[in-house]
Amino acid sequence: MTERKVFKLLETLKKEVYEANLLLVKYDLVTLTWGNVSAITSDNKFIVIKPSGVSYDTMTPASMVITDITGKIVEGNLKPSSDLPTHLELYKNFPQISSIVHTHSLWATVYAQAEEDLPCYGTTHADTFYGTVPCTRALTKNEIMEAYELNTSRVICETFRDRGIDPTQIPAVLVNKHGPFVWGDNPRKSVENALILEEICHMAYLTRSLRQDVEPAPQYLQDKHYWRKHGDAAYYGQGK
Amino acid sequence: MTERKVFKLLETLKKEVYEANLLLVKYDLVTLTWGNVSAITSDNKFIVIKPSGVSYDTMTPASMVITDITGKIVEGNLKPSSDLPTHLELYKNFPQISSIVHTHSLWATVYAQAEEDLPCYGTTHADTFYGTVPCTRALTKNEIMEAYELNTSRVICETFRDRGIDPTQIPAVLVNKHGPFVWGDNPRKSVENALILEEICHMAYLTRSLRQDVEPAPQYLQDKHYWRKHGDAAYYGQGK
Amino acid sequence: MTERKVFKLLETLKKEVYEANLLLVKYDLVTLTWGNVSAITSDNKFIVIKPSGVSYDTMTPASMVITDITGKIVEGNLKPSSDLPTHLELYKNFPQISSIVHTHSLWATVYAQAEEDLPCYGTTHADTFYGTVPCTRALTKNEIMEAYELNTSRVICETFRDRGIDPTQIPAVLVNKHGPFVWGDNPRKSVENALILEEICHMAYLTRSLRQDVEPAPQYLQDKHYWRKHGDAAYYGQGK
Amino acid sequence: MTERKVFKLLETLKKEVYEANLLLVKYDLVTLTWGNVSAITSDNKFIVIKPSGVSYDTMTPASMVITDITGKIVEGNLKPSSDLPTHLELYKNFPQISSIVHTHSLWATVYAQAEEDLPCYGTTHADTFYGTVPCTRALTKNEIMEAYELNTSRVICETFRDRGIDPTQIPAVLVNKHGPFVWGDNPRKSVENALILEEICHMAYLTRSLRQDVEPAPQYLQDKHYWRKHGDAAYYGQGK
Repeated sequence: MTERKVFKLLETLKKEVYEANLLLVKYDLVTLTWGNVSAITSDNKFIVIKPSGVSYDTMTPASMVITDITGKIVEGNLKPSSDLPTHLELYKNFPQISSIVHTHSLWATVYAQAEEDLPCYGTTHADTFYGTVPCTRALTKNEIMEAYELNTSRVICETFRDRGIDPTQIPAVLVNKHGPFVWGDNPRKSVENALILEEICHMAYLTRSLRQDVEPAPQYLQDKHYWRKHGDAAYYGQGK
Repeated sequence: MTERKVFKLLETLKKEVYEANLLLVKYDLVTLTWGNVSAITSDNKFIVIKPSGVSYDTMTPASMVITDITGKIVEGNLKPSSDLPTHLELYKNFPQISSIVHTHSLWATVYAQAEEDLPCYGTTHADTFYGTVPCTRALTKNEIMEAYELNTSRVICETFRDRGIDPTQIPAVLVNKHGPFVWGDNPRKSVENALILEEICHMAYLTRSLRQDVEPAPQYLQDKHYWRKHGDAAYYGQGK
Repeated sequence: MTERKVFKLLETLKKEVYEANLLLVKYDLVTLTWGNVSAITSDNKFIVIKPSGVSYDTMTPASMVITDITGKIVEGNLKPSSDLPTHLELYKNFPQISSIVHTHSLWATVYAQAEEDLPCYGTTHADTFYGTVPCTRALTKNEIMEAYELNTSRVICETFRDRGIDPTQIPAVLVNKHGPFVWGDNPRKSVENALILEEICHMAYLTRSLRQDVEPAPQYLQDKHYWRKHGDAAYYGQGK
Repeated sequence: MTERKVFKLLETLKKEVYEANLLLVKYDLVTLTWGNVSAITSDNKFIVIKPSGVSYDTMTPASMVITDITGKIVEGNLKPSSDLPTHLELYKNFPQISSIVHTHSLWATVYAQAEEDLPCYGTTHADTFYGTVPCTRALTKNEIMEAYELNTSRVICETFRDRGIDPTQIPAVLVNKHGPFVWGDNPRKSVENALILEEICHMAYLTRSLRQDVEPAPQYLQDKHYWRKHGDAAYYGQGK
């Protein structure tokens, strides 16, 4: 790619990441300056991420920080989100994903704080998440004291690897005692997945509270709804 | 009817269905592109329905899809809601109803996921729904794998038939592990019924949680409130 | 009073009742056309009340209905709220009150549906309500089948009389399996009391759920907070 | 300081206190006229506080009341908040704090009414509050009947002293059967802390309800998150 083309792509991505950050506010997924959205360029060379602790009200596309994949800042006057190392390691391990969102949204954080997986109790869940959304194990004292943000990501990847979960089919994780990380094909999609995760955590909490012995939706119902919307045989929506 | 008259009626109905879809957003009954409203013409020949997976923000009356009663598209550039076969079969079996709404609204979906009927705990429920709102049985694996949307409707009709429920007196159903379908005399009314269903599911959940041994409202109180608002002896509202 | 003066007073009261009805919407105490506000003139001769089943969006001050104390319409083209007989009987029995509000607001209705009194669990409650807000007994089948709205009021009055409650100190009641009636010195105040009732029902529900063996606030704390805001020794607010 | 400089500082502080009071409304922490914000000048000589029982809609910066540290009004035509003595005594005992907020916000009040401490269940809590947020003991009958507002503050200070809590590390308290008092470095920060307290009370309530045997976050996770944002080694945000 010419330098000029790279420049234009990055400008577009900064705007998309900026707009996705504002969607976090619109969808009521963040409080104050909490939360952040990042995206990786299609050549896997650059990351665009929200600056650390900056207000959503005063932010502009130009406030976004660009780093290379080692986290070195290549553009921007502000410090990147302190969760940057978590994002970098996730992009490295999940090359299929293009954007990551981290929030402390209420219902997903409650599941994370309770150290509970999120089972699929109905079609609303199955339309987007193909099975249980996992909660990671707790990080050890050492993992927290040294390279905490990097280790957060390592424990996420360990969870998906050990349980054989495909991160494109379950585009979210609950980090133990912390909160959700969610991803997708682009910044808008990641935020929409974060919104859906919030909604199905809310529904799951209430469903279990209404009926303590509730069972997950049968696998064939989950299959039907997930594949109605994903893959080659999908027939929901207007197609490409 | 002349062709011109049919054309005008359909234009009016498209506008009504469009506006009812926007009411779903206003009343907080839908997330993202979820949910759909349809209506049938008074001669039972045509269906107007929301297109599949289209954003409520960009939709216009012209985005609505018109099909005949077999589901064949007769007007519109977009694919109809993937739930169209459920709507068609409901219109066929419940000829008294003129409009159908499907949502994944929070509280009604929680009851559906818990596979629980919604009992009448008070006058708010009885003002609109004359008795328990039923939750269907689960669809079988075969019913889900083949003609899923059609079978969804068949199980709804089976529920009303087997329990002897009049769909004009209970204008809603909770589909097992899925969510609510709601209907009414016109698109606006259907959405209002969906809003009331949401409200009384919320109230019922909290009432039962506050008092585990709560009893339904006595039948004579339900009779009083339902017939105060419906039928020839109704005295609520401003009359016709 | 001259006829002209009566006319002006009624115009003012119509505006106040209209604005109080809109406050019900602003404070999220009503859904669709539910709920109503009324007021009585200071000479106890006329009632101004919301018309039955009319939308809050299209209502104007001129939509308000004026009746005499027997319920006979003296001005207005619309039918008054079907709850008018309940209002009339309350004004007759509680001459100290000037305005009444009826809603199906969520949390107060949940307490009514659970047939539970609302105990005072803290100072938020004691600032406005001097003790337990009572839930009435259920109306009998006969009381419901004949003169239902009048009997609703009679059971409210019976509750206050039998329990020795002063309706100026507890300006609200929970009607069994139905919802709240709330009152006050003027239309705005009645709606504010309805809002406070909603808030303390919400708090009480959650408090009891967090701690099942929760005790009411001690009487001396209730005394302190109630009399800090009411009566001759009150020192909250800016005085008269 | 010259008189002119003092005057300008007080004008600025009045504006800050006024704006912080409006933030209480924006963040949904208050109902009607409930709640109040105060601040103390950097020379510890003057207090700026919301007037008692005045509507947030009609308030202006000029409505703020200025008192000296004994509570004597030095500027303003309105009576100060009736909670002024609580604020004064807190400033005297916690010289590190510059602004105080009192609300009856829902979730914090529920914890206060249940007489429960708020444990740290996750990183959202640990990012701002370094450990358990305490609920005070109940005031005695005598403490309530005489000098109630002053004694409220004394019981708060007793709680922090007896439990060895640093009020800069835990900038909030739950007053038994009453509600939260929250503080910070300036009026905006105090209100933000009140918002965070509300959020973590909400999360804690739900977490415990989802998993009754939930454990607090391990101390090393709390340490990591708190010190990531506070003190000399902090690396969250954009620095000074």
